[in-house]
Amino acid sequence: MTSAAVDGGSGTTLDDLLARADALDVEDPLAPHREAFLPADGVVAYLDGNSLGRPLKVTPHHLASFADREWGSRLIRAWDEGWMDAPTELGDTIGRVTLGAAPGQTVVADSTTVLLYKLVRAAVDARPGRTEVVADTGNFPTDRFVLEGVAAERGLDVRWLTPDPDEGVTAEDVAAAVGERTALVLLSHVDYRSARIADLPGITAAAHAAGALVLWDLCHSVGALELALDAEDVDLAVGCTYKYLNGGPGAPAFAYVARRLQDGLRQPVQGWMGAADPFAMGPAYEGAAGIRRFVSGTPPILGMLPMRDMLALIESAGMPAVRAKSVALTGFAVEVADRLLAPLGVRLASPRAPGVRGSHVMLDHPDFRRVTAELWQRGVIPDFRPPSGLRAGLSPLSTSFREVALGLGAVAEALGRTD
Amino acid sequence: MTSAAVDGGSGTTLDDLLARADALDVEDPLAPHREAFLPADGVVAYLDGNSLGRPLKVTPHHLASFADREWGSRLIRAWDEGWMDAPTELGDTIGRVTLGAAPGQTVVADSTTVLLYKLVRAAVDARPGRTEVVADTGNFPTDRFVLEGVAAERGLDVRWLTPDPDEGVTAEDVAAAVGERTALVLLSHVDYRSARIADLPGITAAAHAAGALVLWDLCHSVGALELALDAEDVDLAVGCTYKYLNGGPGAPAFAYVARRLQDGLRQPVQGWMGAADPFAMGPAYEGAAGIRRFVSGTPPILGMLPMRDMLALIESAGMPAVRAKSVALTGFAVEVADRLLAPLGVRLASPRAPGVRGSHVMLDHPDFRRVTAELWQRGVIPDFRPPSGLRAGLSPLSTSFREVALGLGAVAEALGRTD
Repeated sequence: MTSAAVDGGSGTTLDDLLARADALDVEDPLAPHREAFLPADGVVAYLDGNSLGRPLKVTPHHLASFADREWGSRLIRAWDEGWMDAPTELGDTIGRVTLGAAPGQTVVADSTTVLLYKLVRAAVDARPGRTEVVADTGNFPTDRFVLEGVAAERGLDVRWLTPDPDEGVTAEDVAAAVGERTALVLLSHVDYRSARIADLPGITAAAHAAGALVLWDLCHSVGALELALDAEDVDLAVGCTYKYLNGGPGAPAFAYVARRLQDGLRQPVQGWMGAADPFAMGPAYEGAAGIRRFVSGTPPILGMLPMRDMLALIESAGMPAVRAKSVALTGFAVEVADRLLAPLGVRLASPRAPGVRGSHVMLDHPDFRRVTAELWQRGVIPDFRPPSGLRAGLSPLSTSFREVALGLGAVAEALGRTD
Repeated sequence: MTSAAVDGGSGTTLDDLLARADALDVEDPLAPHREAFLPADGVVAYLDGNSLGRPLKVTPHHLASFADREWGSRLIRAWDEGWMDAPTELGDTIGRVTLGAAPGQTVVADSTTVLLYKLVRAAVDARPGRTEVVADTGNFPTDRFVLEGVAAERGLDVRWLTPDPDEGVTAEDVAAAVGERTALVLLSHVDYRSARIADLPGITAAAHAAGALVLWDLCHSVGALELALDAEDVDLAVGCTYKYLNGGPGAPAFAYVARRLQDGLRQPVQGWMGAADPFAMGPAYEGAAGIRRFVSGTPPILGMLPMRDMLALIESAGMPAVRAKSVALTGFAVEVADRLLAPLGVRLASPRAPGVRGSHVMLDHPDFRRVTAELWQRGVIPDFRPPSGLRAGLSPLSTSFREVALGLGAVAEALGRTD
């Protein structure tokens, strides 16, 4: 690739941007943490850490060691020696390191979809006089699908908000939509397309003013943004662990339920592992006290392993530093896009203001479906989101500024090719 | 341990039984397969393969290699390169190797509990005029709890059968209980306590005669007993993979839905991965065609790995040989129990007839809670089931006859100690 090929008419060359990227990498206090991740042969720029975080170098060893020493040697005894407590113990770790949640409110289980179902059901069933749920048409499909399904089965109306393309769903939108009929508001904290950060405390307060509960989807927040669920009076939240918590493909999700609500909520998937005494094998279901009641089946222990090392790494870095790196990375991506891609007709579809931008940057161009497929073959790996979005997910601890420049430089080059 | 200590007054010594065990091991055509499993330091006899199967020797290596080469190197591209199809591809393998199920009817997802919930809901919602579900009080807690929960939320009555202690739930019991009000019958194929095998074809036919559906819990069957779900006209089944399929702690479960029913069933946890086109990100949920619609969230890829090697091992041995070994192992356990334990007041709580006995043997004695705890310290690992059951689960491919003799010999010795 030559500098001339990616000039794009702005006068800035890729070489200029690579030099600037290298300077930023040198200054980056978290740069040494990149060494914790497994290198990937042939991958020039991994810009999809918000779809699937990379494994740490210790991950293969820890998985093998677990199978050998824990599962293979302790066998069934390991359930008594720690596995039974894993959903709440690991939940507490996620709560402490990333959510701003005191112990006893976070649990690891199931998938994001199944936990969404449980919490939506628990919430609307706890508000029996209320006949409406509020959501937005821009939310991630699984959130909308789950909500639609629960609304249909419980005879509720969904009040769909259509977010303003430039503002997203605002506290004013929610305040205008909620009322005495509203049981629940379901929203994503960081939009999976635009990366816009919603006004979590403002929207939560607006819903509470109408007596409604709020369920926040934190999939694109956890591990990249500072959260303060307890301090900001959040009711319910779910999130996935295979993005910025690097839990591996399909790693189990987490749910947060504020302690003040737990006794009043009942989730529908009544299983032995959420029962007060799983091994009593008693005649009737009695839900466990506290957050444990949101567990259903046997905890997926193997899938909980990889995220443990990532949580330790995040804790050692500290979430404020992680967020600062995230802001710097996305800021640099915007800068590179302005210089190299805007002249080629690429539109920035994420906020410019760093305070309302999550850890990815969405770019838009009619050719991006073709471009993404081409780049994947060459080890430059962003994500494509229909109809024409190229999403660069920048995982703060594993992504270098140089990767951003190389990756978006390759986008420019691919756009320039018309063969 | 001396032979005298475990004579139990029967005249047979442990040494006699060990000699007989060794002869059976020599004759065992599947004995070489035991070498495929990881040895466990300090474990004398693992008699709980029906709670948690052992890892294979290749498991640590395959987990490490997966993290390094597949997740770490292919990164998000691996979803397109195989992971997306894993729920149905692995489901088809389970179907072919262990269930007697043609492709397109088995899927791997979630936990047994969550899949039970989905299928119970799908079944009763597909029989809207019917107001009753039938189950038995002896079923595993999670089955009963899920059914109770669904019945309560859908306004159905549960008709509880109380199984005869010597016969279990019979086809006659079910025929007498079902009628035009019955939507669903939920039963376990192999009883988790007694190991009694239910009359699957007879009960299925009895339910069908009344127009009801049947959901079979195969947790204690799959990988140990020959199954013929297609041939025996089964409607629905679920099972877990961490027992005789050695999937590891909390490995994802499987569901079977007969092809003829799939289009008419709708499961309640509507997620993006069960949608017709997961990446269309469209406005409304439309379930995928076929078995895929029973998936909800992101498939737990890591948790699907260990069972793959076990399924290959089972396939190489062949289910008829696996079942023959299982019958021989439990038969020998009954023989040892008769000789060494009956004289000490231990009651056999499993069927004597091998044709109706699964792959574990339940024994009963008031001291078994203490005895199990003591044995675990000494590397003899059966399971305890309240109030007074000691369960010896004999995983056909990993258990030796010698382990059975050593394990039950240790039970006799521990019962003999009164300090």
